[in-house]
Amino acid sequence: MEALAIFAYAFSGLIEARKRRLDAVGAFLVALVTAFGGGTVRDVLLSRRPFYWVEHQDYVLFIFAMSIFAPLFLRVTSRLFDQRALLVTDAIGLGLFSVSGTSIALDAQMPAFTATMMGVVTGVFGGVLRDEVPLILRDSRPYAVCAFAGCWIYLGLDRLDVDTIYNVLISTAFILLARLVTFKFDIRLPH
Amino acid sequence: MEALAIFAYAFSGLIEARKRRLDAVGAFLVALVTAFGGGTVRDVLLSRRPFYWVEHQDYVLFIFAMSIFAPLFLRVTSRLFDQRALLVTDAIGLGLFSVSGTSIALDAQMPAFTATMMGVVTGVFGGVLRDEVPLILRDSRPYAVCAFAGCWIYLGLDRLDVDTIYNVLISTAFILLARLVTFKFDIRLPH
Amino acid sequence: MEALAIFAYAFSGLIEARKRRLDAVGAFLVALVTAFGGGTVRDVLLSRRPFYWVEHQDYVLFIFAMSIFAPLFLRVTSRLFDQRALLVTDAIGLGLFSVSGTSIALDAQMPAFTATMMGVVTGVFGGVLRDEVPLILRDSRPYAVCAFAGCWIYLGLDRLDVDTIYNVLISTAFILLARLVTFKFDIRLPH
Repeated sequence: MEALAIFAYAFSGLIEARKRRLDAVGAFLVALVTAFGGGTVRDVLLSRRPFYWVEHQDYVLFIFAMSIFAPLFLRVTSRLFDQRALLVTDAIGLGLFSVSGTSIALDAQMPAFTATMMGVVTGVFGGVLRDEVPLILRDSRPYAVCAFAGCWIYLGLDRLDVDTIYNVLISTAFILLARLVTFKFDIRLPH
Repeated sequence: MEALAIFAYAFSGLIEARKRRLDAVGAFLVALVTAFGGGTVRDVLLSRRPFYWVEHQDYVLFIFAMSIFAPLFLRVTSRLFDQRALLVTDAIGLGLFSVSGTSIALDAQMPAFTATMMGVVTGVFGGVLRDEVPLILRDSRPYAVCAFAGCWIYLGLDRLDVDTIYNVLISTAFILLARLVTFKFDIRLPH
Repeated sequence: MEALAIFAYAFSGLIEARKRRLDAVGAFLVALVTAFGGGTVRDVLLSRRPFYWVEHQDYVLFIFAMSIFAPLFLRVTSRLFDQRALLVTDAIGLGLFSVSGTSIALDAQMPAFTATMMGVVTGVFGGVLRDEVPLILRDSRPYAVCAFAGCWIYLGLDRLDVDTIYNVLISTAFILLARLVTFKFDIRLPH
């Protein structure tokens, strides 16, 4: 049930990202915050730990895969049902997250009225982020993707037991240079 | 004192909501985030639990009542003092929240400079949300109100000891259908 | 290393604030949220306490000093390297925060993919706030600065052992009057 809610919202995020012409990393970020934004706010408000996306790393990976394959899928099907698919996936996510948010807040001994407000926040917040985040990502130059690549380099060198100090220097230098090079040569991500 | 701050900010939220022509649910949400936004951020930063709006559910209910009656009241009086009332209620909320935020941060053993910054954040954040949230709610179709109704259905069926699985299905189906029906027939909330 | 990241991001915030013609308090706030925004979100997500800007009050004070002196410095040098300085300081902050965020998340036993996403969020979020906050502060009348002054009055009277009730009343009255007076006489901060 929870998985259905997450994938419905993630998919609505990918449709929205496509409408706004974001690149693959941007689409991934929008799908991620749409799927996990409401639940994270709920978990902060209820002091629940670990966050559910920490427990379900497989969901994050699945959304990552969706972000890569969705553009191909959406290109084929978009003329048929773009707007309607956004409405339906959004309504499924809104419904499941609102109700599960209320349920979890009641289990955490919240009073009734507060529990319903938490349900509404859990349900609505993903949709709000889906609408807002693309406005923040309007820059078409690679920004998050440079950071992303640098973090993976750090992770890889950490696995190879490279000394932390050198590792930080190397990974940071990579991100710094990547940003400067993409600006110098005005490299933009395809979308 | 705290009650005065909360109601001053809630009232400024209702005035702002009226200026932006939001419906009753939208006005309630704006009043709520204006009244409790700053204090919630402060409580997250200071790791204070439970949140004070969890302890004071009566305040939330009172703001709910205000949201229903305020439009009538504001319609009568608005020509007289709309802009001035916004300025004064905002200044009362800003003052009380900034000072109480500083006081609470000092009690929590924060160093002096950090305590004043927390006071400023507590005071300013409600006003920031009051200005930003209406931009997010610009869609005049019922969105939060569908989620809200579904959460109350869940709560009611939960009290009637309906099995959780069926309850989630019914409440979610209600929200999903409500969204699709309001789109299909282009139903908009009055304002 | 951490200090370098913080000051690089704070400096990029000051350059951005100058481009948007913010006053000194606005510039300070932008520098502060740019420098500490990403790390605060990371600490909330990882449940790390105390926040690192609570432990490093000296950084906050240093940024405060930078905010006062930066305008003079930037006025002299801006024609030479404004845009380039923004790019470089931003890239340094992005790199160091992304990598240190990944590193801290790994130390907190996060799984690999989640750790890199936290690194990206830590790195990117400061830059997002730097772009968004100036839009919120567009009002050129003193708002945060009134709250700021009132908080310091509270702090000073608290040190003088003034009774808390009277102290709250005096400090709040100061903020309230300051707001009303600046409106009445249309006082604006220089920039």
